[in-house]
Amino acid sequence: MKVYGTTTSACTHKVLMVLAEKGYEAELVEVSVLKGEDKSPEHRARQPFGEIPVLEDDGFLLYESRAIIRYLDQRLPGPLLTPADIRRRGLMEQWISIEQSYISGPVWTLVRGGPVYDIIRRSPGAKLMPPPPDAAGISTARAELAEAFDVAETTLAGQQFLAGPEFSLAEVTWLPYLQYLFASGGGDLVTERPNMSRWWQEISKRPTWMKVGRVLEAME
Amino acid sequence: MKVYGTTTSACTHKVLMVLAEKGYEAELVEVSVLKGEDKSPEHRARQPFGEIPVLEDDGFLLYESRAIIRYLDQRLPGPLLTPADIRRRGLMEQWISIEQSYISGPVWTLVRGGPVYDIIRRSPGAKLMPPPPDAAGISTARAELAEAFDVAETTLAGQQFLAGPEFSLAEVTWLPYLQYLFASGGGDLVTERPNMSRWWQEISKRPTWMKVGRVLEAME
Repeated sequence: MKVYGTTTSACTHKVLMVLAEKGYEAELVEVSVLKGEDKSPEHRARQPFGEIPVLEDDGFLLYESRAIIRYLDQRLPGPLLTPADIRRRGLMEQWISIEQSYISGPVWTLVRGGPVYDIIRRSPGAKLMPPPPDAAGISTARAELAEAFDVAETTLAGQQFLAGPEFSLAEVTWLPYLQYLFASGGGDLVTERPNMSRWWQEISKRPTWMKVGRVLEAME
Repeated sequence: MKVYGTTTSACTHKVLMVLAEKGYEAELVEVSVLKGEDKSPEHRARQPFGEIPVLEDDGFLLYESRAIIRYLDQRLPGPLLTPADIRRRGLMEQWISIEQSYISGPVWTLVRGGPVYDIIRRSPGAKLMPPPPDAAGISTARAELAEAFDVAETTLAGQQFLAGPEFSLAEVTWLPYLQYLFASGGGDLVTERPNMSRWWQEISKRPTWMKVGRVLEAME
């Protein structure tokens, strides 16, 4: 299998994390967003929207990271990251959707207001990047995250992970955005909530994530 | 089962559509967004973000429409709306995610520029509504939809539905937004593409959707 993406991309991280959890090694084919390679005709032939990541599995092309991770979980042997119980599976999907609806948007706002964004803006692709947010934008993003994290905090008071007693694809979708949040000075929103903090300690210290997420730390 | 939602909500439509496809009748408990009932403490006890819909199944509460429809498809007897083949299932998830990433956002922009929005803004909850978009906003939204629809057009040239030869949850997630697009004067973006037009004719004339989607037509 091949993964077209880049090691600084949160969406690529999700795919690499599932591969790591499954103990499967795929070839990572670098498609640099900062160099604009994702918008090349060659990449658009794989992904017509010009985005990463793309999975290639024996001629089968699949894109949209949340689709790829569900596919890989079923496709590969190794521990299942989807609960067998249908209610827990429903909750896993709920938390994946909460991430998409409430987390990644405000996290990117904070990333654009933090030190990592300076590195990104100095890259050749920087002309495409929106400007950093103003103080009001940062404040709104923090408030949105605080509301969502309050909900997660309540859930994590009663169980170890978002969907129940097991690590699932829900954690896979949250991990890269939380890592970017910490890298952008917003980690207090997690650490000030005891249950989320305990949960974050556990998932971010997972050996698989220590491997996949380390690239971002190297950027800081 | 109970569905907390309202018959003018696209996300509620998705849930009602899956129930209709399964031949299952659930109680629809009206939670009016226009009256602000979704932000009431009573509703927030079910859905902490103050959004609709919410499913209640024998004491089990689930929210986020895309999670609810996957749950109902597994929970209820009747025709499966998820392909058994894992590649097709991957493609179904890809098209669900494409809708969430590229479709509903620009469709809402066009809704806010169309006649349905006047009805919405005359409601008691109208003070919460953003203003209609300007001409540039409408133009950008149309261009975004055109790009996504070009991708769908290519896919639908080779197969009957988005994920393959069968109607799936991918169609369920696209249907309500396309219905709102037609109600907002943007239907030409669909009808000018022959394969999408053929596909839209087929899915919008499905007896289940004729039942579920009729409410919106009544508003026009």
